[in-house]
This record gives sequence, structure tokens and C-alpha cells, in this order.
Amino acid sequence: MAGESSTTPLLSDELDIVIPTIRNLDFLEMWRPFFEKYHLIIVQDGDPSKIIKVPDGFDYELYNRNDINRILGPKASCISFKDSACRCFGYMVSKKKYIYTIDDDCFVAKDPSGKDINALEQHIKNLLCPSTPHFFNTLYDPYRDGADFVRGYPFSLREGVPTAVSHGLWLNIPDYDAPTQLVKPRERNTRHVLLEVEKHKKYVDAVLTIPKGTIFPMCGMNLAFNRDLIGPAMYFGLMGDGQPIGRYDDMWAGWCTKVICDHLNLGVKTGLPYIWHSKASNPFVNLKKEYKGIYWQEDIIPFFQSVTLPKECTTVQQCYIELAKQVKAKLSSIDPYFTKLADAMVTWIEAWDELNPAGDAK
Amino acid sequence: MAGESSTTPLLSDELDIVIPTIRNLDFLEMWRPFFEKYHLIIVQDGDPSKIIKVPDGFDYELYNRNDINRILGPKASCISFKDSACRCFGYMVSKKKYIYTIDDDCFVAKDPSGKDINALEQHIKNLLCPSTPHFFNTLYDPYRDGADFVRGYPFSLREGVPTAVSHGLWLNIPDYDAPTQLVKPRERNTRHVLLEVEKHKKYVDAVLTIPKGTIFPMCGMNLAFNRDLIGPAMYFGLMGDGQPIGRYDDMWAGWCTKVICDHLNLGVKTGLPYIWHSKASNPFVNLKKEYKGIYWQEDIIPFFQSVTLPKECTTVQQCYIELAKQVKAKLSSIDPYFTKLADAMVTWIEAWDELNPAGDAK
Repeated sequence: MAGESSTTPLLSDELDIVIPTIRNLDFLEMWRPFFEKYHLIIVQDGDPSKIIKVPDGFDYELYNRNDINRILGPKASCISFKDSACRCFGYMVSKKKYIYTIDDDCFVAKDPSGKDINALEQHIKNLLCPSTPHFFNTLYDPYRDGADFVRGYPFSLREGVPTAVSHGLWLNIPDYDAPTQLVKPRERNTRHVLLEVEKHKKYVDAVLTIPKGTIFPMCGMNLAFNRDLIGPAMYFGLMGDGQPIGRYDDMWAGWCTKVICDHLNLGVKTGLPYIWHSKASNPFVNLKKEYKGIYWQEDIIPFFQSVTLPKECTTVQQCYIELAKQVKAKLSSIDPYFTKLADAMVTWIEAWDELNPAGDAK
Repeated sequence: MAGESSTTPLLSDELDIVIPTIRNLDFLEMWRPFFEKYHLIIVQDGDPSKIIKVPDGFDYELYNRNDINRILGPKASCISFKDSACRCFGYMVSKKKYIYTIDDDCFVAKDPSGKDINALEQHIKNLLCPSTPHFFNTLYDPYRDGADFVRGYPFSLREGVPTAVSHGLWLNIPDYDAPTQLVKPRERNTRHVLLEVEKHKKYVDAVLTIPKGTIFPMCGMNLAFNRDLIGPAMYFGLMGDGQPIGRYDDMWAGWCTKVICDHLNLGVKTGLPYIWHSKASNPFVNLKKEYKGIYWQEDIIPFFQSVTLPKECTTVQQCYIELAKQVKAKLSSIDPYFTKLADAMVTWIEAWDELNPAGDAK
């Protein structure tokens, strides 16, 4: 039954790596053996006059704020500034089938045997084999080598559904919110954390499908997706400069994406691969960015848990426009920000379709 | 945030181990260090005149078919014969808060460091810390030492809900259905399987809550639950002698239990601990037992995925009686067996309440 091939296709002509950054990309040196065959789309955040150095030998295109404004014109308003949410511009200008996005403070992790983890290879594996959102498999991903569907798994569901998203995890510094960072100061200390990793065996050798009807906190640090299947839903919202909120860009994309995947019968996987997250961001700065999100999410999450899309919505774009309508209708009472966000969601789709003229037929 | 204590309470006065068997219980020798402090309830299946030997030093009570008939009278009809489904009689006669049930071909497994796994200790950990069915945590059980809730996890949901069920997994021989056993003959060979275990690292160091609204294939080989919270839902149905179906006893219990846990705001965890499952049962015999289940489940599972219980049902018993009604109304068209099963579900609750007079108040 295992559908996983022992040699994973590289997909080097079909995948772009999108990296949002404000600094020189020295971190790419460590990724060279795994990334050098791929095209990079670098989205430079902040001051566009700053020169970002990219190590020799990488094939890349780089967009700064001036480029974004030039390419999108007035529609550039939907792309965040001074926040890594700007990365979604890279998804829009890519012409490839698959996207992998990674933060520039993420390095190559090691598996328990000490071997370097080729994160991209595992993401490709995840994306190329099906997901199982309609029934839970207690032995995790049934398509991995050596695994299968357990007794009691309906045979009619064993073909699974296409996988749209592969959500990878992190060793060393986990993806915690500011309050958790503040109450767990030890986990800001790399030496301590190294010992913790050993002690608690944080490496979990599993991939699993997030069940249909279950939304999840999607982190944008180490994330891959099938752009043809779900690209237009991967909008990272309005964050950072001029906005009342930050650090909820990937969460927003995750909530919208999961609802649309459920509606369109697509799968979302989480688990492997791990990357090594080198440095926790400043919890005091994070608290300022997050605090509205922390209380807004108490209303936003029930909204996404109960939202339904009409059958007539059969493309990602149609689903997303419908979701924008419902966001405006149901979340604007929390804060006027959601009216602005709903409008930006529509602008995002207009910009997407402008840059991807065939996209609306998908 | 981690709620897990480093020294796990033994609960030796609060937990019974239930073992269904037809043979001498030599397998207990290996479990002695972990089980000897607990009381065993042995449910002898098949010929009641056969003597089952239990190794010295264990504290146990043993019930054979004559005992079951004597204790339950005409209501004994709800307890299966010649099928390990008879184990649920042990749940009914226990007076303890927690139950652990294990098959007699399950041995102590080793963790990746080579240490013997105390399965019961891990089950107790799982049962004593909360579950998180209302939102998905990408770092698995947030209450384990060294883990936590990730960014984007609503704070209002971080207390979790009481855990009712802890579903453990298996190394060596996985819990596959007969068709999968037949097409994977290598996995019937222990030597091969040992190598496979090494190669594919089947040991997944994780516990996770099965989300609300998601049912799952529950295996009875290595299972613990809080009898006070969910006991009356743990009915293993009518299987074996005189019935058209076998090997769906634990599945039936799992479907019913999960629906009732969701309704009563209780949690179900799966993952650790592993036991070592020594011997796959005969796939040809299994196929005969399973084949009706394999096609019936295509209708049964959608039924359980969509069933809802009225708000008025606030006890497990009330939920279970309501579920029996709906089984009769909606599944009897598949086969007259479901009418009989629905009646047996009601009998089971009557027998439970007779043996547990305070139980209906829980």
C-alpha cells in the first residue's frame, strides 16, 4: 500500500523557494547541498535601498518594495511591509507548481542518527503522496514506507485526496507566542535547549493528515504547498507597518487555507521535516505585535471552525472571495481592521489573477 | 505549562487490568515488574471447564462463561462468546476508576534507547493530563514535559478537557485487517519485521488528542480508559459465536465512545505507549471474521461521522441508549444484525446499571 517512492523526485523545475528577508542570506550556505538546484524568490522587506547579499552560485530573483509597488501598482496595498507577511508576494510572482518557504534564521537540523535532514525532500514526499482527511489513521501517514492503513480503515477512503500543504516543524526554538516565550525563559537559551531536546526527544518521526473540519495553527517558517491547488488561499494578510497586528500572518493563511482545503477535498499534512530554528525573536517585541491577535483569535477561531462555503465555490479564488465576504460580515464587529483585511483579500485575488491569467480556470 | 509530573502516580488501588484469554497466562511473567501491584480481571473465553493457569504472585479474579451466565442471567446474552469481545464483561464487574486492557499475545516493548517500556505508566500519564480536542496542537500533546502550546493556540482552550481514553500502539506486528495482512506477507515474519522496525523507525514518540468530530479505528489490544467517565460506552458488541461478524468489537466500541466523548466534552488520546505484539493472527481466519465488517463499515462510519446526540443526554448511559435507538433506526437496513446489536446495547446498559447501582448518577 505504501505509495512513497524510495527515490524522491527533485522537482527542481517545478518548485520555487520563497525567502522573505531584511539581511544578507548567509544562512543559504548551510542549505547549499539541498537548495542549489532550485530557483529562489527573495522578497526583501524594509528599506529597498539596502543591498541584500546572496551567496554565489544560487539562482535567484529578488524583489524589494519598489519592485512590488511597480509590479502591482495600487494593488500593492495588499502586500504587508515591515513584516515577513510580505513573503506571499513571492507566491504570486512564481510560475511554478510548488512553493517552499523558509525563514532566514532556519538551518539544517539533524535527525536522531545525526544525519542532516533534507527538509525539502521530505516536503516533496509529503506533497506527492495523498492525504487522508476523512478518517484518522492511528499509525500516522499510511503512505510512508513501512506504514499502512490500520484495521478498521474504510477501503473506500484509502486512495486519499491530493495533498495541498505540507507543514514542517522546528527543533531547538519552538514556535511559541510571546507569553509562552516569557514564561519559559530557559527555552531562549540554546545550550539548555540542546539538553532539553536530548532529554525529551522532541524529534517525532511522524507525518499526519490534519482531519477534515479541524483547523490548526500554521507556521510559515518551514512550509511547502502545491501552488496550483491552493496558491491563491496562501495570502499572509495585512501585518506590520501601519497595521494593528503582527505575527498572525501565517495563522491567517492557515485558517483560510484549511477551510478551503476542506471544502475542495484537499489534504493538509503536518509533522516531518524538521528545520533547526536558530534564534527566538524578542518576546517583548513579539508581545506588542501579538497582543491584539491573542484576544482576537478567541473570536476568529470559532468563526473559522464554523464557516461553510457554498457548493457553487469550486475554485480557490471563488472560495477565497466568499471567505472575504464572510470575514467582512462576521468579524468587522471585532475591529474595523477586519473590514480593511477583507478588502485586501479581494485585492490579493485580483492581483493574483492579473499576474496569473490562467489561474482563475484552475 | 507542562502538566505532566515527573513521578507518575501508580493508581494501584484505582485501576484494574482486564485480560480476555483462552490459555495460560504465561505472558504475565514479562509484565510482572509493571503489573504485579495491580488487580487483574481475567475473562476466560471458550470452554469454561478448561483451567487457565496464572503465574504465582498476581492478585486476580477470573470469570468463565458459567460465571458470566450466573452473574448476568438472561442479560448475559449481551456478552460475546468465543471472541475477545467478552473482555467488556471485565469492565462491568470492575469497581475501579480506571481500566487497562491488554491482549495475551502482547509483550513489553523497548524504546529506541533499549529500555523496557512501562506501558501502564504511560497510559496513566495520558489519562491524568487533559486532552485538547477543540484545536490542533502541531507539537502534539502540549502537556508532556518539554512541550507546550504553539503560537496561535487560543488561550481559552489551554486548560483542555478531561481525558477519557488512552489508545496505545504496537511494535512488531501492526494491527492490520486481513486483506492487508494477506498482501504484506513479509510483515508476518518476525525477523523481517524487526529489520523493518529499525529501517523505518516505527517508534513515534508522540501522544496526541484525536480532534473533536473525528472518529478513529480504536484497537483493544493496548487500551486504557477512565471507567467513571466513559465506562458504559465501552461495550464491545456482539461478535464471535452465533454472530455474522468478528474483529469489529473494539472498532464498535471506539466509534460509540468517540461520539459520546465528543458530546460530553471528553478527550481521546492516541500514540504512546507501545507494546510488542508478538504474533499476527491467521489472515485467512481473520478474513472470514471480517468480511462483513469490511463492507458494512462503509455505511457504519458515515453514520457515526454524522450522528448527533441531543443536549438532554448528559450521562454516558443516556447517550448510549440514544445511540442504540439511532443504530436501530439507521443501520438495521444494512442487516438484521444491527437490530440485534441495538437491543444488546440496551441490555448492556441495563446490566451495567444493575452491577453498578450508583453508575447512572455519574
